[in-house]
Amino acid sequence: MAILLRPASWGLFSWRGYCSRGTQGRLSAGFVEALKAVVGSPYVSTAAVVREQHGHDESMHRCQPPDAVVWPQNVEQVSRLAALCYGQGVPIIPFGTGTGLEGGVCAVQGGVCINLTRMDRILELNPEDFSVVVEPGVTRKALNTHLRDSGLWFPVDPGADASLCGMAATGASGTNSVRYGTMRDNVLNLEVVLPSGQRLHTAGPGRRFRKSAAGYNLTGLFVGSEGTLGLITAATLHLHPVPEATVAATCAFPTVQAAVDSTVHILQAAVPVARIEFLDEVMMDACNRHSKLNCCVAPTLFLEFHGSEQALAEQVQCTEEIIRHNGGSHFSWAKEAEERSRLWAARHNAWYASLALRPGCKGYSTDVCVPISRLPEILVQTKEDLEAWRLTGTIVGHVGDGNFHCILLVDPEDPEELLRVQAFAEQLGRRALALHGTCTGEHGIGLGKRQLLPEEVGEVGMETMRQIKATLDPQGLMNPGKVL
Amino acid sequence: MAILLRPASWGLFSWRGYCSRGTQGRLSAGFVEALKAVVGSPYVSTAAVVREQHGHDESMHRCQPPDAVVWPQNVEQVSRLAALCYGQGVPIIPFGTGTGLEGGVCAVQGGVCINLTRMDRILELNPEDFSVVVEPGVTRKALNTHLRDSGLWFPVDPGADASLCGMAATGASGTNSVRYGTMRDNVLNLEVVLPSGQRLHTAGPGRRFRKSAAGYNLTGLFVGSEGTLGLITAATLHLHPVPEATVAATCAFPTVQAAVDSTVHILQAAVPVARIEFLDEVMMDACNRHSKLNCCVAPTLFLEFHGSEQALAEQVQCTEEIIRHNGGSHFSWAKEAEERSRLWAARHNAWYASLALRPGCKGYSTDVCVPISRLPEILVQTKEDLEAWRLTGTIVGHVGDGNFHCILLVDPEDPEELLRVQAFAEQLGRRALALHGTCTGEHGIGLGKRQLLPEEVGEVGMETMRQIKATLDPQGLMNPGKVL
Repeated sequence: MAILLRPASWGLFSWRGYCSRGTQGRLSAGFVEALKAVVGSPYVSTAAVVREQHGHDESMHRCQPPDAVVWPQNVEQVSRLAALCYGQGVPIIPFGTGTGLEGGVCAVQGGVCINLTRMDRILELNPEDFSVVVEPGVTRKALNTHLRDSGLWFPVDPGADASLCGMAATGASGTNSVRYGTMRDNVLNLEVVLPSGQRLHTAGPGRRFRKSAAGYNLTGLFVGSEGTLGLITAATLHLHPVPEATVAATCAFPTVQAAVDSTVHILQAAVPVARIEFLDEVMMDACNRHSKLNCCVAPTLFLEFHGSEQALAEQVQCTEEIIRHNGGSHFSWAKEAEERSRLWAARHNAWYASLALRPGCKGYSTDVCVPISRLPEILVQTKEDLEAWRLTGTIVGHVGDGNFHCILLVDPEDPEELLRVQAFAEQLGRRALALHGTCTGEHGIGLGKRQLLPEEVGEVGMETMRQIKATLDPQGLMNPGKVL
Repeated sequence: MAILLRPASWGLFSWRGYCSRGTQGRLSAGFVEALKAVVGSPYVSTAAVVREQHGHDESMHRCQPPDAVVWPQNVEQVSRLAALCYGQGVPIIPFGTGTGLEGGVCAVQGGVCINLTRMDRILELNPEDFSVVVEPGVTRKALNTHLRDSGLWFPVDPGADASLCGMAATGASGTNSVRYGTMRDNVLNLEVVLPSGQRLHTAGPGRRFRKSAAGYNLTGLFVGSEGTLGLITAATLHLHPVPEATVAATCAFPTVQAAVDSTVHILQAAVPVARIEFLDEVMMDACNRHSKLNCCVAPTLFLEFHGSEQALAEQVQCTEEIIRHNGGSHFSWAKEAEERSRLWAARHNAWYASLALRPGCKGYSTDVCVPISRLPEILVQTKEDLEAWRLTGTIVGHVGDGNFHCILLVDPEDPEELLRVQAFAEQLGRRALALHGTCTGEHGIGLGKRQLLPEEVGEVGMETMRQIKATLDPQGLMNPGKVL
């Protein structure tokens, strides 16, 4: 099976160690000098180690380093860099924190990686209007630290301390989105440098209204475009009031169906649950081992409620009734921050607990999302598929949105297992599509799911997306090889 | 002032009575036969009265009738009609309930009006997934009647009993959006017939997931595109649980500032208010006269809360504290449906109460939206402007979103007053733009605000929108003359 020894040809999975070194030197000395003239010499690097650091994200996609990395310090420089690259036919790859999970930063055609982390100012906070403007280097945690005394916070939480503009580019969401929405719901405006170097404000320069019906929704178009249409250089975000109090809970269920039924009933009862996360029994077992916990090894829901003391008491009571009615048991409730953190340890450490199941292995996370009523069906199928493909995997999901991840453990020395992971992930994507779902709820298409996108959106959908791409990036130089 | 006698040249305002009759007969007999071959003879009309009915919406924009009106009965017919018109270079104008407010259905270049009201089936209801699929003839009230026993409802409420697909096309919102969001937040998928006749499913065929990060957000692009990119032939909508109970309230304030401050504080306190509407003292006075009420003639907030009995009690208490702290008085609370309806009569009848201020006059509604902190400033300016322009106008607004309407009374026999209304509305739009706002929160650009859109989104924004339009409608035949 010679193919197994040529991971570069798979497209989907490979290892950082296989970094191609053939791209360096593809840029002329004159072009590198021109980059330096824009941002200053210290902010351009063609060193192999730097390029390799920028050739991969946190996924298992093969490292594909850019030819150079530049660190602009302001939007004018980003404009000049884009115009320079575009004029010379050089690919442009935006780079935030590198915490993506679908190879979105891999420089598949080489080119210039534009690392935006040195633009990290919080430009404008308007507490009365619940809005803030951030540069692309500002991360989610940095913003929330800045907001500490304002009574406001930004709730979208994909887990990683990603940059907010990167989260906008990916269309990220995470554990809080059942209540607070995803990036698509919480971005009010974007400043985007188009490939030509022109600066676009998707909702108009300086606009920070809550709603509008003026022209095409360009903000919505750029959120989730994964760097393929332009570079996001600032985002105006919608903030939310910090809840007066928070209660966390966990409880165990006899079956997946019972856990999902409880979730549907909680949503139907209009309980404004802030987080509702599902962990399967394999995940719970892994958490017990990893964190020396003594949780029930069963399908489990982790919940969090935000509100006033009085509202929380009612939410908790209503939820407990629904859960008991569906056969849930082993309730734990926690109110103080430390106690909540202890209770949610299993959820927070899910990734590392999964990795610890097979030391030395790497993790790969699937990301399908289905209508919530189809969750039990696909979760049962997924567990059967894991067995059929002889794979170790845990399941953790944002069950309120119908989105779940299967964290697969893969031996990096076993290319045959890697192929099975790839096949399993594709099959899971197709199962989700068959159930009216999507192959990616929040990680994006990137490199890894391009083969599934046409099956998801259909030929006319693909053609429409291709037309938009060709219109806004006629040379195909913005993060090439991604999404389409 | 000869210009005052030529209203057709203004672009913005005129009267239905000035209907141009010059367009009829522009379609060849053969083309009309071809239309009949698609939908059947009874479903094509070139009668002047029918064409005139379809040449205007509820606004004051001059009636501009299409050359023919057709009533397709299914999406295949819509596809064939689009392909037929596009092949012959004939403009296509989608028509729902005709309840728009910016001339979106005026056939400025003639063409074929496609009336979609005969496609009025509710195709699929998935209560567990909080989703429903509707054809374009289904109105908001028809859907909510259908949902009556499901425990679910669709909350977006622009006032008129508009078609849901028309609301999607306009990017409508209304009184409930402070809590439940606008159409942009509540459309999961759209079926769109492109000008070529191809059928696009913006999120993919049959998809009804709650969130996705797969490719470009085409759903977001078509919501608010005002029929200029394609014909919406089905919408998948996100439903919400019916609240257990509802409480309505009104209270009066010494100043506009006090009313807006109360709103900000209510939102900052995370009170999940469902509606929060502002009426100025002129509006309240008009309501008193029109409905023989005895309300306080002062800036007033109308509020509505949704939740459990217990949650409502707390919301009401918290709100009352905030309002008293800001100098509010004259509280009225109502719980039973009839009582609530009586309490909210002033708000519900705002349009007619305004019209009654000057019998024989017509109404025109402005629609700006600003960051909420700028509301007091722009409201004070607006009242001064009304005086300066010698106009009668009432103010009513979705204050939680920063969106308000000034309902202007215009004597249809007085073209000079009409010009003043036009000048006032443009000035108000520009005042909103200067305060980081938008010229249209929910009515759309249509015909009436095209001159403001470039000022709002800037040259690069306009160019990007034009490029998208040219890509998806290269001949410029989809609802021509609107938005751009």
